[in-house]
Amino acid sequence: MESDTLSDPLANLITNYHELNGSTVDELPAVPSALEFMRYVARNRPFVVRGGAKHWPACRKWNATYLRKVIGDSTVKVANTPLGNADAIVEQNEGSLLFVEPHETDEPFEDFLGYVQEDSTFPEDRLQDRHVKYAQTQNGNLPTEYPSLLADVPPDVPFATEALQQPPDAQNFWLGNHRSTTALHKDNYENIYVQIIGQKHFVLLPPVEVACANEQPVTRARYVPASGETGKLVIDVDEVAEAVPTPTWDPDEPNVRATAYSELSRPLRVTFEAGDMFYLPAMWYHKVSQSNGPEGFAVAVNYWYDMSFDGGFWT
Amino acid sequence: MESDTLSDPLANLITNYHELNGSTVDELPAVPSALEFMRYVARNRPFVVRGGAKHWPACRKWNATYLRKVIGDSTVKVANTPLGNADAIVEQNEGSLLFVEPHETDEPFEDFLGYVQEDSTFPEDRLQDRHVKYAQTQNGNLPTEYPSLLADVPPDVPFATEALQQPPDAQNFWLGNHRSTTALHKDNYENIYVQIIGQKHFVLLPPVEVACANEQPVTRARYVPASGETGKLVIDVDEVAEAVPTPTWDPDEPNVRATAYSELSRPLRVTFEAGDMFYLPAMWYHKVSQSNGPEGFAVAVNYWYDMSFDGGFWT
Repeated sequence: MESDTLSDPLANLITNYHELNGSTVDELPAVPSALEFMRYVARNRPFVVRGGAKHWPACRKWNATYLRKVIGDSTVKVANTPLGNADAIVEQNEGSLLFVEPHETDEPFEDFLGYVQEDSTFPEDRLQDRHVKYAQTQNGNLPTEYPSLLADVPPDVPFATEALQQPPDAQNFWLGNHRSTTALHKDNYENIYVQIIGQKHFVLLPPVEVACANEQPVTRARYVPASGETGKLVIDVDEVAEAVPTPTWDPDEPNVRATAYSELSRPLRVTFEAGDMFYLPAMWYHKVSQSNGPEGFAVAVNYWYDMSFDGGFWT
Repeated sequence: MESDTLSDPLANLITNYHELNGSTVDELPAVPSALEFMRYVARNRPFVVRGGAKHWPACRKWNATYLRKVIGDSTVKVANTPLGNADAIVEQNEGSLLFVEPHETDEPFEDFLGYVQEDSTFPEDRLQDRHVKYAQTQNGNLPTEYPSLLADVPPDVPFATEALQQPPDAQNFWLGNHRSTTALHKDNYENIYVQIIGQKHFVLLPPVEVACANEQPVTRARYVPASGETGKLVIDVDEVAEAVPTPTWDPDEPNVRATAYSELSRPLRVTFEAGDMFYLPAMWYHKVSQSNGPEGFAVAVNYWYDMSFDGGFWT
């Protein structure tokens, strides 16, 4: 592969991209102006503002006691997976791949939060049969499922709303713990991501690395409760749904399902702390894991803005 | 071709681009802010501000008398071509292609301007043996060759300088007449183009139409005076220079040197009048012809800003 780089336009493209772009995520000294933000959108490059949201009421007020108080036993949607592999590729014994969505349950918030926190009290070897819960609905769940938290976060990100000339399309709330990892994927949204409690660890690939990510049509499936075995989840294949192109390469297991181009990938790795504000440009691949805050869970909020599909970039 | 569009990713790309983007150049009601400009840079889309430069001293003051007065007999660089085909593809009798640069001469400005104006006094059939002159050096010639005009135009375009965080790389002066046409080409600059006298007619193709433009390595050549025949220009092939990738398709002769994709091209055609300000995004193909103002010539000024080569767009 290496010796072919010069003659292979795709390899050249990836290599040139890395030569022209930094190998780290830019750190801005303060929340950007709309113009400063638009320069990043134009270049489709990420940035982080360390502490950029630390003055948000959410960053000052949210903890287990406060969340229990204001959300109480309201019903929230919870993603259940056996191993924390939410929306992930699962390789079957015979080698075929499935994209498995979580088993979704409606639970009183207090019960859900308690379960998430209790994970930290188990020794590692006793966790294996205890499935993983994660609030991660990504459908604008903050105003619909968590309306009592709305007062603690701004309704939009002003610099992004001004630059992109639109309000956010969705405002999402994420609560989980160290056991959940979101597999490598991309979204067709401009994403402003704010860590509130704990840490999130992002692995990032620019869109030019599409040839590294080994996108393949993968059959859809879903975890469902095993009949007769309480708490056990099994995979239910969706025989009807069309297979959807899905990245099948994992930058943390670079030799598994690699393409000839995967070794050219230069993943950016960045950790966000409570109060950090992150711009994840549209169509960037990202894999996300998390570390708990002091009370055994992590919380984030994000704002999705519709990306521009005109111009040339979306290609 | 048409029936293959669905299965051919490149044809799909071009067709989708046209579906998602307008078929005209946006007209802005006023000179944009830096942020408004940056949105166009981000989308790599052109716009025109009709009359956006009409308050410039150049637009009020420049005419043949004024230019003669302030430039006088200063030496300027003039491009000479037999047919007005400056920097153009020339097909040889045997079918091979050459990219022929003009014969460049140093001339007193007054003589040059007189020659350009006199073209309008000749009947068409007597012009054929009279070669065409065009001031079009494109190397930042305004400050170097026309310093006496600098006071009449702003040193930069403030919204572009603010947005792109840099002064212009070059400020160019163009003076020619209806006989000169610049062949389809692209520049790796963000271009702010201001018409001062007469009209310019642009034919524009977005970068996604690269497959329509039929870029091929073409041998370099140059017009040189024929020995012993005053005023006659002949082609001198540069046997040493490497052939350079050059668009060989002409949207005004769509059936000549067309590729399988050329019929998918949807050229934008737009005419700029005196006082109009135009943003030509980096890497857009453009072919430019002109119409004379009231005194038999056309003048334009443009500002080239270095494009951003980082981010993903340059690909």
